[in-house]
Amino acid sequence: MMKQTITLLLILCISYAQAQNADSVTIRKFYNEALANGKSYEWLRHLTKQVGPRLSGSTGAQKAVDWTKQLMEQEGFDRVFLQDVMVPHWVRGAKEVAYIQNGKQKTTVPIAALGGSVATAPKGVEAGVIEVTSFPELRALGADKVKGKIVFYNRPMDPTKINTFEAYGGAVDQRANGATEAAKLGAVGAIVRSMNPRHDDYPHVGGMRYGTGVPLIPTAAISTNGADLLSKMLKENPNLTFYFKQNCETLPDAKSYNVIGEIKGSEKPDEIIVVGGHLDSWDLAEGAQDDGAGCMQSIEVLRLFKALGIKPKRTLRAVMFMNEENGLRGGVQYADLAKKNNEKHMAAVESDAGGFTPRGFGIVGTPEQRAKVMPWKPLLAPYGLLEIGAGGGGADIGPLAQSGTVLFGFRPDSQRYFDYHHTAVDNFEVVSQRELELGAASMAALIYLLDQYGL
Amino acid sequence: MMKQTITLLLILCISYAQAQNADSVTIRKFYNEALANGKSYEWLRHLTKQVGPRLSGSTGAQKAVDWTKQLMEQEGFDRVFLQDVMVPHWVRGAKEVAYIQNGKQKTTVPIAALGGSVATAPKGVEAGVIEVTSFPELRALGADKVKGKIVFYNRPMDPTKINTFEAYGGAVDQRANGATEAAKLGAVGAIVRSMNPRHDDYPHVGGMRYGTGVPLIPTAAISTNGADLLSKMLKENPNLTFYFKQNCETLPDAKSYNVIGEIKGSEKPDEIIVVGGHLDSWDLAEGAQDDGAGCMQSIEVLRLFKALGIKPKRTLRAVMFMNEENGLRGGVQYADLAKKNNEKHMAAVESDAGGFTPRGFGIVGTPEQRAKVMPWKPLLAPYGLLEIGAGGGGADIGPLAQSGTVLFGFRPDSQRYFDYHHTAVDNFEVVSQRELELGAASMAALIYLLDQYGL
Ligand SMILES: [Zn+2]
Ligand SMILES: [Zn+2]
Repeated sequence: MMKQTITLLLILCISYAQAQNADSVTIRKFYNEALANGKSYEWLRHLTKQVGPRLSGSTGAQKAVDWTKQLMEQEGFDRVFLQDVMVPHWVRGAKEVAYIQNGKQKTTVPIAALGGSVATAPKGVEAGVIEVTSFPELRALGADKVKGKIVFYNRPMDPTKINTFEAYGGAVDQRANGATEAAKLGAVGAIVRSMNPRHDDYPHVGGMRYGTGVPLIPTAAISTNGADLLSKMLKENPNLTFYFKQNCETLPDAKSYNVIGEIKGSEKPDEIIVVGGHLDSWDLAEGAQDDGAGCMQSIEVLRLFKALGIKPKRTLRAVMFMNEENGLRGGVQYADLAKKNNEKHMAAVESDAGGFTPRGFGIVGTPEQRAKVMPWKPLLAPYGLLEIGAGGGGADIGPLAQSGTVLFGFRPDSQRYFDYHHTAVDNFEVVSQRELELGAASMAALIYLLDQYGL
Repeated sequence: MMKQTITLLLILCISYAQAQNADSVTIRKFYNEALANGKSYEWLRHLTKQVGPRLSGSTGAQKAVDWTKQLMEQEGFDRVFLQDVMVPHWVRGAKEVAYIQNGKQKTTVPIAALGGSVATAPKGVEAGVIEVTSFPELRALGADKVKGKIVFYNRPMDPTKINTFEAYGGAVDQRANGATEAAKLGAVGAIVRSMNPRHDDYPHVGGMRYGTGVPLIPTAAISTNGADLLSKMLKENPNLTFYFKQNCETLPDAKSYNVIGEIKGSEKPDEIIVVGGHLDSWDLAEGAQDDGAGCMQSIEVLRLFKALGIKPKRTLRAVMFMNEENGLRGGVQYADLAKKNNEKHMAAVESDAGGFTPRGFGIVGTPEQRAKVMPWKPLLAPYGLLEIGAGGGGADIGPLAQSGTVLFGFRPDSQRYFDYHHTAVDNFEVVSQRELELGAASMAALIYLLDQYGL
């Protein structure tokens, strides 16, 4: 009996080792192909330079839909299709103007309307300024002090957080809800320090929401240098005024699309593994790191399977989600349709943290599901994928979790992401070809293992 | 007896846990200070923008010596001193000129003389071209085919290597020894594809050596785009000629210095821990990633100890080594003087792989010494320092190994280093403040543990 057990254990060990070895050879091939013959970088050049900014509802977004559909068709995926989705259609209008009026001295500062904001009156708004760093601080001041004023939110991203997403998470409430909280106390506008770890002259935009039952007041991001200057001048003269004028507008919802390419599974075609990013981007730049990178990497994952002749058992889908930035309508629609069509989504992987050097994956699933992934760690470690554990998935794939899909958030190095995020500098030039390609190969490796072993 | 043993074990466990906890608090402080109040980035701005290029023997190098000495004095280190060192003094002279002559068509390409090369004749050299990718391939052609020709080395850095230093190591023989190997077979010049993972127009220079007893032929780096073009044109017309003219010169050795700042140890002042980088840089750019970053990080390490009021038991030295790039005279001189003065160097840490996001440390020491470091891994992991193990130390600290000093090479992310290395684009702008500061804090954390627990 003892002898038999030992023999069985030995056989199990050997076959486990052999499987691991075969997998490590395959994973090496994904990296070789992505690094030596990768397409993601040249695709990203096209998406950023030829298509450009692509905020939901814009002609750029429509061009991006058309071009990625065409690209996936050219790559010969088994099926390429669109999903209709109605999206918010906000437009910036003419460039914003802002200045600090300090006695007779007028100092121009760079601002940009936040996505979803209303315009100012055509002649702009000018008022005294109340600087705060939090909502409790604002509420403590009370309506008496805030009424008729512009509230200036100036809490920086915490530089001591090692992961910049944590610092972003600790500051972004000002952008999302600042206008509402200010309006509740009678403010006439809200100016928000850019979510930017650097000191520079670029406003960083992003989505905001109005609460129900409060006046819709205009709100804009100010550059970090502009915020520092305003704060300094306020200390010298609390009675200075701030002027801004913005011309943005929310138009009726527009028709748009998720774009989906598919490689049919050979054994379990009804089990789907999604890899995706969001196709829309803010209007100030080319949307290179956010999230052209993730989109091009996702298509590259499917191309890698095809180029290496690896036929997945399950169906792989590259999904270009529409409208992550100001509505998440694409992600919600994708999950709704999956439910309606009774599709089984085993896993979904999202790349929406930039095309930087890969460091790992965050997993949203049960402890048992996470435990299934752990034996793969030695296969991924040679590629620097050392941070694998519980953590965020991704906004677009989030709605799939309800139906039991296990979510994987691709985690590249976070240090530079917010330098570019939602600004005029998020252009092709800030993407490193090698870093982008390593990310695509890393996602392919994970998806290969998910397909081989399931969850 | 059993009971006593258990009690003892428990006490040991508890005090170990308490020590780890105190250490983790201290390490967190290093990061907080470096990220919130760090000086390395502004210092680097000065070194790159005010001092600029600083090849050994140049006035830039002398300025760098003067300024770093002054900086460490201002920071109030216990002792700041210079070590004399005679260094090679090579100068580029007027900018190089090169073109491909293909029939009547003349195509200019970007080249730059390699450090240590001789000039061409004043009117330049023009000859047919022999393209090879290795020395064996060159030798197989033989003197008949090579005599009177320009040898063009065109083996790229292998893009499939995950760590770019490995790819560099696999290509740099062409630069270091290409001229000598070509001269042995009667070539009149050697042109070397830049060690650059990207396709662009910047020649990447670096040191080369002439073997004894062979003619000194001129040698230059060509940009990767230039190399691709030359290769393509050679395939169409193997009889085209290449012209280049360079004006470089090796002057008599010049007097220079290592610059050293010190915090005296409170308990074991005679045991020294070195942290350093090299102060010299190539002449085409500001030497930001290579190695202004490492120098400024090293001074920042000492500043962090002072700012936090942490008195090291052992003596800490920040060493700005002179002449790593084309001679290593500073590193050799430092080790020679250490020996002569009977100094005990317990450990040396070098940062010469750029100011990118930290990933770990390579250790050169005995297995027992490496084993001493392993229990520190959980203290360093929260900061992304996950790659800690045997590996390279650093060129400048290398000569200390002979006397038993344990060497630590700081390992930042390697993906972008060779994009900038030894080119005109290695300027302040390619350094990320956060990445630089994280590196300084990581080195401080390691040095703190080395000082606390020894090896
Ligand atoms: Zn995004
Ligand atoms: Zn260097």
